[in-house]
Amino acid sequence: MRIARVIGSTIATIKNPRIEGTKLMLVQDTDESGKDLKSPPYAAIDLVDAGVGDLVLTCHGSAARQTHITKDTPTDAVINAVLDHLDVDGKRTFEKA
Amino acid sequence: MRIARVIGSTIATIKNPRIEGTKLMLVQDTDESGKDLKSPPYAAIDLVDAGVGDLVLTCHGSAARQTHITKDTPTDAVINAVLDHLDVDGKRTFEKA
Amino acid sequence: MRIARVIGSTIATIKNPRIEGTKLMLVQDTDESGKDLKSPPYAAIDLVDAGVGDLVLTCHGSAARQTHITKDTPTDAVINAVLDHLDVDGKRTFEKA
Amino acid sequence: MRIARVIGSTIATIKNPRIEGTKLMLVQDTDESGKDLKSPPYAAIDLVDAGVGDLVLTCHGSAARQTHITKDTPTDAVINAVLDHLDVDGKRTFEKA
Amino acid sequence: MRIARVIGSTIATIKNPRIEGTKLMLVQDTDESGKDLKSPPYAAIDLVDAGVGDLVLTCHGSAARQTHITKDTPTDAVINAVLDHLDVDGKRTFEKA
Repeated sequence: MRIARVIGSTIATIKNPRIEGTKLMLVQDTDESGKDLKSPPYAAIDLVDAGVGDLVLTCHGSAARQTHITKDTPTDAVINAVLDHLDVDGKRTFEKA
Repeated sequence: MRIARVIGSTIATIKNPRIEGTKLMLVQDTDESGKDLKSPPYAAIDLVDAGVGDLVLTCHGSAARQTHITKDTPTDAVINAVLDHLDVDGKRTFEKA
Repeated sequence: MRIARVIGSTIATIKNPRIEGTKLMLVQDTDESGKDLKSPPYAAIDLVDAGVGDLVLTCHGSAARQTHITKDTPTDAVINAVLDHLDVDGKRTFEKA
Repeated sequence: MRIARVIGSTIATIKNPRIEGTKLMLVQDTDESGKDLKSPPYAAIDLVDAGVGDLVLTCHGSAARQTHITKDTPTDAVINAVLDHLDVDGKRTFEKA
Repeated sequence: MRIARVIGSTIATIKNPRIEGTKLMLVQDTDESGKDLKSPPYAAIDLVDAGVGDLVLTCHGSAARQTHITKDTPTDAVINAVLDHLDVDGKRTFEKA
């Protein structure tokens, strides 16, 4: 799973019926301290009621459909955890505000 | 899912029978304001009647086959939403014209 | 699917029995005008009788096994269309010779 | 599978119920001598009781769900081996301390 | 499939039981002449009794589990062919020694 920050939301009136009603957030991959990487943001379906600013874990590929919300839907990315803290080599690199 | 812009279309007389009749568009990944990334364009099957110029979400891998149109077909990318707007950190970064 | 050009072929006497008899071509990803990208070439199983020089679409991952030829085989890339032309923003960027 | 070093751990109170109880480590991809690559760290579910500092193999995509611990869970990366040593062209490039 | 060279081997006493007994080689992606790319080496399960120095094809993702050896195992890369030669635009770019 990738470390990412929820940065915003997407609104799409026209979409595949199977993803109607899902909460499609915009996320930005970050490093272990929550600092943005230079990679482009992407959209992920939120499974854990994450809010803008939260550091989260995103899960990709067929893994993203292993939930009741996303089963059999054209979904390739979900948010499946809100991070409280990250520790690297014994030091806290991120702590939720 | 990735943010992308529909930039054109592909015509292929010779193709695998299972993708006959699908609408194969050319798309270009963009950032959250709809600005083109430097990555190469790719082809995606359109599920939502998108037009050239539309900002859309594309879905990749086995996720692309979770629809009636693409089930059991050699398809690895679909367009599954037309974006109305994108919001990042409370600011509108993209709005459909 | 990616835009690619067929650049050559591979010969392998020793291979997994499940891919015996397939036509394994070498392909190079290109941009929308058929110009080579700097990415490395790769091997793909040809489903559409493509020839060296043809611009094609390649399909990746589990999608590559959604055909009678590749079902249940260790295959992660196929050629599933020969391109006639590509149009970007209303202009023809590629036309088959 | 990728060569990676376990660099830390993640704590997430709010997560998808299907990954509750798993041990989510932070890992960093390395080269064949265990030297860190510049790629960002990521989270992987530990299947082999690895510790911080261990050089391991990580497995990605649907492969990550081919175990009793991760079956049917939204998981896209696991640690499935702790490396004792690596040999390249007849020379030992890594040996566990 | 990717063109790669077998560069070495991995030894791991502690590993997931489902990959016990497999032959885990280290491989390095190359170009069409067998020249190493700058990408990091990775581990792949050998299906074709390849040796160090051989140029091979590697297959990735769920494709890697479409064999009797790797079925239902946490495996995301296999070696499924030993290359005899590669031809690009009518010229031989690689020939096995």
